[in-house]
Amino acid sequence: MLVQKYRDMLSGKSVIRELSEFATARGQEIGYENVYDFSLGNPSVPAPREFTGAMMGMLRDMGANELHGYSPSLGITSVREAVAASLEKRFGLPYRKEHIFMAVGAAGALAHAFRLVTEPGDEILTFAPFFPEYHPYVDLTGAKLKVVPPDTENFQIHFGKLEEMLTDKVMAVLINTPNNPSGVVYSADTLRRLADLLRTKSDEYKHPIYLISDEPYREIVFAGVEAPCVSQFYDNTVMCYSFSKSLSIPGERIGYVAVNPRCRDAVDMVNMCGQISRGIGHNCPPSMIQLAVAQVLDKTADLSVYETNMNLLYHELTALGFFCVKPGGTFYIFPRALEEDAKAFCRKALKYDLILVPGDSFGAPGYFRMAYCIDTEKVERSLGALRKFVAEVYKG
Amino acid sequence: MLVQKYRDMLSGKSVIRELSEFATARGQEIGYENVYDFSLGNPSVPAPREFTGAMMGMLRDMGANELHGYSPSLGITSVREAVAASLEKRFGLPYRKEHIFMAVGAAGALAHAFRLVTEPGDEILTFAPFFPEYHPYVDLTGAKLKVVPPDTENFQIHFGKLEEMLTDKVMAVLINTPNNPSGVVYSADTLRRLADLLRTKSDEYKHPIYLISDEPYREIVFAGVEAPCVSQFYDNTVMCYSFSKSLSIPGERIGYVAVNPRCRDAVDMVNMCGQISRGIGHNCPPSMIQLAVAQVLDKTADLSVYETNMNLLYHELTALGFFCVKPGGTFYIFPRALEEDAKAFCRKALKYDLILVPGDSFGAPGYFRMAYCIDTEKVERSLGALRKFVAEVYKG
Repeated sequence: MLVQKYRDMLSGKSVIRELSEFATARGQEIGYENVYDFSLGNPSVPAPREFTGAMMGMLRDMGANELHGYSPSLGITSVREAVAASLEKRFGLPYRKEHIFMAVGAAGALAHAFRLVTEPGDEILTFAPFFPEYHPYVDLTGAKLKVVPPDTENFQIHFGKLEEMLTDKVMAVLINTPNNPSGVVYSADTLRRLADLLRTKSDEYKHPIYLISDEPYREIVFAGVEAPCVSQFYDNTVMCYSFSKSLSIPGERIGYVAVNPRCRDAVDMVNMCGQISRGIGHNCPPSMIQLAVAQVLDKTADLSVYETNMNLLYHELTALGFFCVKPGGTFYIFPRALEEDAKAFCRKALKYDLILVPGDSFGAPGYFRMAYCIDTEKVERSLGALRKFVAEVYKG
Repeated sequence: MLVQKYRDMLSGKSVIRELSEFATARGQEIGYENVYDFSLGNPSVPAPREFTGAMMGMLRDMGANELHGYSPSLGITSVREAVAASLEKRFGLPYRKEHIFMAVGAAGALAHAFRLVTEPGDEILTFAPFFPEYHPYVDLTGAKLKVVPPDTENFQIHFGKLEEMLTDKVMAVLINTPNNPSGVVYSADTLRRLADLLRTKSDEYKHPIYLISDEPYREIVFAGVEAPCVSQFYDNTVMCYSFSKSLSIPGERIGYVAVNPRCRDAVDMVNMCGQISRGIGHNCPPSMIQLAVAQVLDKTADLSVYETNMNLLYHELTALGFFCVKPGGTFYIFPRALEEDAKAFCRKALKYDLILVPGDSFGAPGYFRMAYCIDTEKVERSLGALRKFVAEVYKG
């Protein structure tokens, strides 16, 4: 018999995907350049030339068997060494290859992290607003994702609500900073307070509460913003990283798990990731792509366009009277809608060819997300549509 | 708390890996060229130039965002279309892109197939001798792998034992033809009889029993051997394919699930694979590698060396008095050891720098596996060592 839970999921529709499909269809009518499509978080800048150069060089110079051969189950040793050295240099923690597990993107990294520290029935807490895929990612492991309501003042952490929900069933807390969808970066204060609380509660419950830190946007941080390294604040941190956004290669599925060297059993945890892989069909990221990213660990694509776009949108949105926390990074902004029902708000915006995503599926009804990983020229043109939309619908 | 089942697995040792490590260490003493290392099933021939050419061409000519962008969750549409067209042309079944799900190698494909048709507690049957990784692959889903004892005459299927074990708890039967480790190809007779039995039992138990066909060795078939297409025999077949062996790119993790177009709910099953992915962190094989294999679907590496090696070994082994089923494909041979305890036999062979793998972990104690995906020149030199080993230890 086909398994019903997966069949049931077929009828669930992704709001983001539906909006993206609408944008594509509308683009066929009026030209896609005229659709202000803020729906998808798909990097818009090209991969750095160094990445392409690394790939070309290996294809030209390396023996095919060496290049395309099996990777060890934890990742290629030289790649793990390079990642560890880069992290140590940058964050000052004593990472070694034994702390690094190469994974197929952040999704692959998280799939290992969740299984490492939860049994079915255990709880993982995350904070609204949050990436909606966390639900299937966690819930299909048998663990349960619970969402702490948002601190809507600044999208840091609502500690009052967190304390209520941090029962002894909670085995891990999942954070995402810089954050999709708010663009907010957790401050050192937030991280210190979170770490203190997790230490206290770990002692009280007599089991460690792990901090799973999903960091795909780590390299997209705007001028004047400090993005503290989460692992520096809390020993039991499992960092999940992806090169998708920093190198603009989301389709190539490459990232890693980096277990904090100060975490108890850190080396065992990495080895356990290799066992988890056997049960989920992971079996390493592609060898060639592991080898390529190891050559460009400290490079990024030209990410400056995201900041340019953010400033344009933030300025216009606040001028139009939107309540809006200024993003410190990523390529998202998450303003409050001009009516309580953000779904209705976003539906009305479609008439102006503005594709905005309501915040409901991010755990923050009443807000909406704009993904501004698009050409600046289009962002500029969208501002007129935004003004017209607000003037006609909300100030008419 | 760290999850104990994964921690427990750390102490389990892979015999194949231990032997491979021994071979490497011994190679450092006497030169690896003098170690007759038959331990690992790692393709020894280079990827076809067309694959390298396809990769280089795309890196040179395609826009980086198009090349490295996200793949849809079922795989890139044009790639699925190309795979379906190739399968239809070759096997005469009406495959369409809707029947194809792109996966990260056979391990990824199997991870989806198992979850598609089994709930925790259900059983999957496979046949000894079998690929030992099937145990963690299945058991970690919560389903249970049960192994039908071997038909040691010819390593086809022991139907008597199969009928005993095919209870109504069995939701799927997993086969691997051409087979690792025996090298045997299931005959049309075997497949017809298997299909008849599965149809009868599906009717009797009032639920479909799916046939999961793991086919990474499909392209390595020797002269005079017919390798029938499994899906032609049984409608409820889920084919799991990998390009690792045919294109000699095992590290690049690319394969697919092809659901038989005649299978009930075939299209739903492929869509369900996209949902399963969300729970196991799969999220598509790398875009670039999907696009590259689509350009070389009907190519293979030069696989002829495997047949040359097989003939050399088969001839020598039978001349030395080994009972040995002649492989019809793959790069494995699975002779009976010269004493009952194959572990002892393989341990004694180490003194002659012959690295042979005992059949115990393949579900066939008393046999041993030789993986002859190595240079023919080394196979030729190994024959002397083999003769000496047998003469001194077993005919002394």
